[in-house]
Amino acid sequence: MEKFIYAPEIAKLGHVALVTENLEKSLWFFKEVIGLEETREVNGTHYLRAWGDFEHHTLSITAGETSYIDHIGWKAKRKEDVANFARLLEDAGTDVRWIADGEEVGQGEAIRFELPSGHRFEIYYDMEKPAAEEGRKSVLKNQVYKSWAKGVSPRRIDHVNLQTSMDNKEIVQYLTETLGFKLREYFVNPDDVQVASWMSVTNLVHDVAMMTKKSTGPNEMHHIAYWLDNSQDLLRAADILCENEVGFVGPGKHGISQAMFIYVKDPGSGLRVEIFTNSYLIFEPDWEPVKWSYDEYLKHGSTYWGDRRRDDVNRDQPVKA
Amino acid sequence: MEKFIYAPEIAKLGHVALVTENLEKSLWFFKEVIGLEETREVNGTHYLRAWGDFEHHTLSITAGETSYIDHIGWKAKRKEDVANFARLLEDAGTDVRWIADGEEVGQGEAIRFELPSGHRFEIYYDMEKPAAEEGRKSVLKNQVYKSWAKGVSPRRIDHVNLQTSMDNKEIVQYLTETLGFKLREYFVNPDDVQVASWMSVTNLVHDVAMMTKKSTGPNEMHHIAYWLDNSQDLLRAADILCENEVGFVGPGKHGISQAMFIYVKDPGSGLRVEIFTNSYLIFEPDWEPVKWSYDEYLKHGSTYWGDRRRDDVNRDQPVKA
Amino acid sequence: MEKFIYAPEIAKLGHVALVTENLEKSLWFFKEVIGLEETREVNGTHYLRAWGDFEHHTLSITAGETSYIDHIGWKAKRKEDVANFARLLEDAGTDVRWIADGEEVGQGEAIRFELPSGHRFEIYYDMEKPAAEEGRKSVLKNQVYKSWAKGVSPRRIDHVNLQTSMDNKEIVQYLTETLGFKLREYFVNPDDVQVASWMSVTNLVHDVAMMTKKSTGPNEMHHIAYWLDNSQDLLRAADILCENEVGFVGPGKHGISQAMFIYVKDPGSGLRVEIFTNSYLIFEPDWEPVKWSYDEYLKHGSTYWGDRRRDDVNRDQPVKA
Amino acid sequence: MEKFIYAPEIAKLGHVALVTENLEKSLWFFKEVIGLEETREVNGTHYLRAWGDFEHHTLSITAGETSYIDHIGWKAKRKEDVANFARLLEDAGTDVRWIADGEEVGQGEAIRFELPSGHRFEIYYDMEKPAAEEGRKSVLKNQVYKSWAKGVSPRRIDHVNLQTSMDNKEIVQYLTETLGFKLREYFVNPDDVQVASWMSVTNLVHDVAMMTKKSTGPNEMHHIAYWLDNSQDLLRAADILCENEVGFVGPGKHGISQAMFIYVKDPGSGLRVEIFTNSYLIFEPDWEPVKWSYDEYLKHGSTYWGDRRRDDVNRDQPVKA
Repeated sequence: MEKFIYAPEIAKLGHVALVTENLEKSLWFFKEVIGLEETREVNGTHYLRAWGDFEHHTLSITAGETSYIDHIGWKAKRKEDVANFARLLEDAGTDVRWIADGEEVGQGEAIRFELPSGHRFEIYYDMEKPAAEEGRKSVLKNQVYKSWAKGVSPRRIDHVNLQTSMDNKEIVQYLTETLGFKLREYFVNPDDVQVASWMSVTNLVHDVAMMTKKSTGPNEMHHIAYWLDNSQDLLRAADILCENEVGFVGPGKHGISQAMFIYVKDPGSGLRVEIFTNSYLIFEPDWEPVKWSYDEYLKHGSTYWGDRRRDDVNRDQPVKA
Repeated sequence: MEKFIYAPEIAKLGHVALVTENLEKSLWFFKEVIGLEETREVNGTHYLRAWGDFEHHTLSITAGETSYIDHIGWKAKRKEDVANFARLLEDAGTDVRWIADGEEVGQGEAIRFELPSGHRFEIYYDMEKPAAEEGRKSVLKNQVYKSWAKGVSPRRIDHVNLQTSMDNKEIVQYLTETLGFKLREYFVNPDDVQVASWMSVTNLVHDVAMMTKKSTGPNEMHHIAYWLDNSQDLLRAADILCENEVGFVGPGKHGISQAMFIYVKDPGSGLRVEIFTNSYLIFEPDWEPVKWSYDEYLKHGSTYWGDRRRDDVNRDQPVKA
Repeated sequence: MEKFIYAPEIAKLGHVALVTENLEKSLWFFKEVIGLEETREVNGTHYLRAWGDFEHHTLSITAGETSYIDHIGWKAKRKEDVANFARLLEDAGTDVRWIADGEEVGQGEAIRFELPSGHRFEIYYDMEKPAAEEGRKSVLKNQVYKSWAKGVSPRRIDHVNLQTSMDNKEIVQYLTETLGFKLREYFVNPDDVQVASWMSVTNLVHDVAMMTKKSTGPNEMHHIAYWLDNSQDLLRAADILCENEVGFVGPGKHGISQAMFIYVKDPGSGLRVEIFTNSYLIFEPDWEPVKWSYDEYLKHGSTYWGDRRRDDVNRDQPVKA
Repeated sequence: MEKFIYAPEIAKLGHVALVTENLEKSLWFFKEVIGLEETREVNGTHYLRAWGDFEHHTLSITAGETSYIDHIGWKAKRKEDVANFARLLEDAGTDVRWIADGEEVGQGEAIRFELPSGHRFEIYYDMEKPAAEEGRKSVLKNQVYKSWAKGVSPRRIDHVNLQTSMDNKEIVQYLTETLGFKLREYFVNPDDVQVASWMSVTNLVHDVAMMTKKSTGPNEMHHIAYWLDNSQDLLRAADILCENEVGFVGPGKHGISQAMFIYVKDPGSGLRVEIFTNSYLIFEPDWEPVKWSYDEYLKHGSTYWGDRRRDDVNRDQPVKA
């Protein structure tokens, strides 16, 4: 099929690079409570992934003076897509910075750039997929680590949810037209203005969501999400969080995305983490984005059932992204 | 992005067209026991789908003298892909038959053709997505029917598994090179010959699998599969099947695909149905197919744990496809 | 062991007799949404039970001008215990009314009396245990009906929770000293006064609970509870309630009793029903009642995790008992 | 109620005292894989319990030349029941040996004796209920240890299942008439002879079962069982056992007792352990034992669904008891 010429495409969410003002607490939270595995530590940066993540890391954690998201990494579909995206982004007036092979541990050449909102994205293709060492390695050939080794024990990273004070449609347009995300679901405010959008390049309902909140900054992180296979795993997670005395909101079920959720904050960085399961997959290429009016959003879209609180974990200032 | 030229692509498994020698029993099984919803009945063909299937049907059932699979429908990614696939297939020496708009109820123009093994495939793009009528309609805007209305109550169709007496690699090559499926996992016999392959165009581990069994015909159906959201749903399904006195094999967990399974036969047609959950998703564009040696296949690949029987439901002659 | 003389003992909670101001709605709720089975209907009273309840009924529903609980039936451990309880109660100054064999359908001779709070109790021993009719009968010899036939589909009745404006300790003393219930858990108000108590004669943490609320009447029903086998069944129940547009509070987990809960009101009578699972069993004869201080109650005892709302379903006036 | 005179009664299964020929492997299995907590170690005996067990130990493990069950401990309902049982047993011609306060760590005065089959039972009343130390202690006041700390993580001991070459009815008669167990379910061989019986003093279907197998010794241990709260926990257990490369039979569901099961052998001692959940409770004082004919036993009683293998784990010689 060499005769075909493809637009560059994003294949999947790769990883989130977190800087934390309390490294010890963040490592305790992500390794002991959530139960992520550490691939390795290089120059003070800890590279973590879930037991079912194949690539070198889906979360990196580095100490810093303040907590923020350094960048969000996306894997391109083809090796040449990295350079093609660079060209396409520069043509669209976006500044692109090249990251050399190995500058991010485990990763090949990549580009970094900012969304109009200021959120920092990275696009890469090459990434090591190291096997687990003996003792932590799964007996299954298609699974990296043994599952259920520690804590909540999610299978894999799922999505990122971004927050901005800017116009929702403008940022969504950038994500869909420039980066190829497809709009899956969205809701509008009482004035019928689009204020929250769920988008994906995969069969997931969302790899990325964009929430508009006037009272916030332009580039903030609403949450990152890790996936569990079963809804009961989420109830087990609730028990584990309680026993570790880490507060959370949930469990509950969203109407939008049909997913069960728990929201919990990393006590080190303040980064909100969604523990996420169920939901549905979209295979339809002719998917019509599902629009939720504000009333529908309030009635079923936000919390279909379960814990409706927005305080505690959810009210506090999110970390910058 | 008009400047890019794309090869035709399959987006997803659409539906399976079943002919049954006992319509009444098949309808009882699929509607009451499995719990599929009937979209409508036209000229003796019953169009069914699960509560979370969006398109007009994922299973059609028609009475016949013998039971067989008439065809397996695949949805193309773009409208023009149907004609592009026709051209590409004919170039490759495959006979293509055009199906007029509406010839299959709910469906636009489509093509039908045979794999080298004789399995009949259909490629379509346009398909109605009818809403459910009041009373059966979900309160959720992104869900078609209420869930849990009857029986096992799966969310959606998941995959098809084909069986052939022919060389496995030859058929897999056709599926990957001509139709664009990607090989995800496979196992070899003691002579290191590939005999079973799992392939997908989506993020699922497989939309289609191909099993080679010398003692069978060239074009048979191993099973079709419907998806449940949670592993406990499968245990509930086991209770329901027992209470309906329909024999089955399972529950168990496959190593290959990491999925939980129950195999149960439609007592009307003899078509084997897999009730399927958990498994994992593949987002990596640079996925290396997982090879299971025969020993690995026996140890963990086939049945990781659970019911290992191959008799009863599994030993009998499958339906032709 | 004829030489031993036993005090009369209560063996278990038998049934709740509900009078409803909207029979049609109550029957829809308990039969279609909750999924109880109807044993039979005699003179306008509908006798219901769950698929795993062995006795003739665990809930009876009769139309009335107002909604209230007519009585709560308890099964004695031995046939002679009914008369022995009558004697013992009369000695203690309680009025006892005899109910003739068959006066309550399916039930032998029984006694009725009031707690000091005015809640009406019944003690019986003989009760029919009718088999289910063909079609609804389980294939299992130790189970009455097929499970999962309709709605939430609980296994059995679990407990009753009573509410009173009276002194908690006084009513608890009556329940423990006169009727033989053992105190399992309780909590106190900020003044260290006992205000809520969980008691049982079985291995359950509670067959009956007594809540004191100054602003209520002396004899009210906080809720009745039906049991599900698994925590995921409760999440399925939440989906079913949403699809039936019946509001509810939950899911959540209580610290006291360690049980998962959903509270939902019968829209016909206003009777609150707890859908209940998990919890723990007490086998220790030397159990020390677990005391929760008011702070402990607020922190972990009431809602360990999950939906913390007390409005909607929980704020409204309960039915009289 | 001082005027009443009670027969001595057993309240519950207390603990199993295991001697193992491979202490290291047994401790690894029970502590790391099953996930029991160690209360303490005294003179080479390790005292273990599950996170929800209240008493000092439910399993003790001591090194020995061969593996066997030293005794099975039962807690009496009242302190005086220990001496009353001693009298009653001696009257019935059974040898009784007194165990001094503290001779078994944590335990008060007790008696030991043999069933007619030779199985060694102990009856005690006083047993320490030590709190867990900080770090392992649950935040819940009614729970001893944090749940989900390690491995399978069962809540509590559930039952013991004994095997004998002797006449089933004879041993059952001893258990019911002398010790007060109630027969709950049983099955007969093709000659209508009772060969397996499930009995309890609690609301569980069985605290003890007795299997007759002609080709075995008179006093063997079929298995001991630990309880999980949810059926999905059993599927998680299967994953954990696979990852630890410990073979097992299951998961499956028994018709008799309606319980889900996994059978796994302690690789140190060969003691078979049942991981057990769901099942039902019997509250009826007038329970009629459920009789399963041999055909019914084969069809639904033994394995209702799931893994039917009797080889591997189940075929090997059980440990003596």
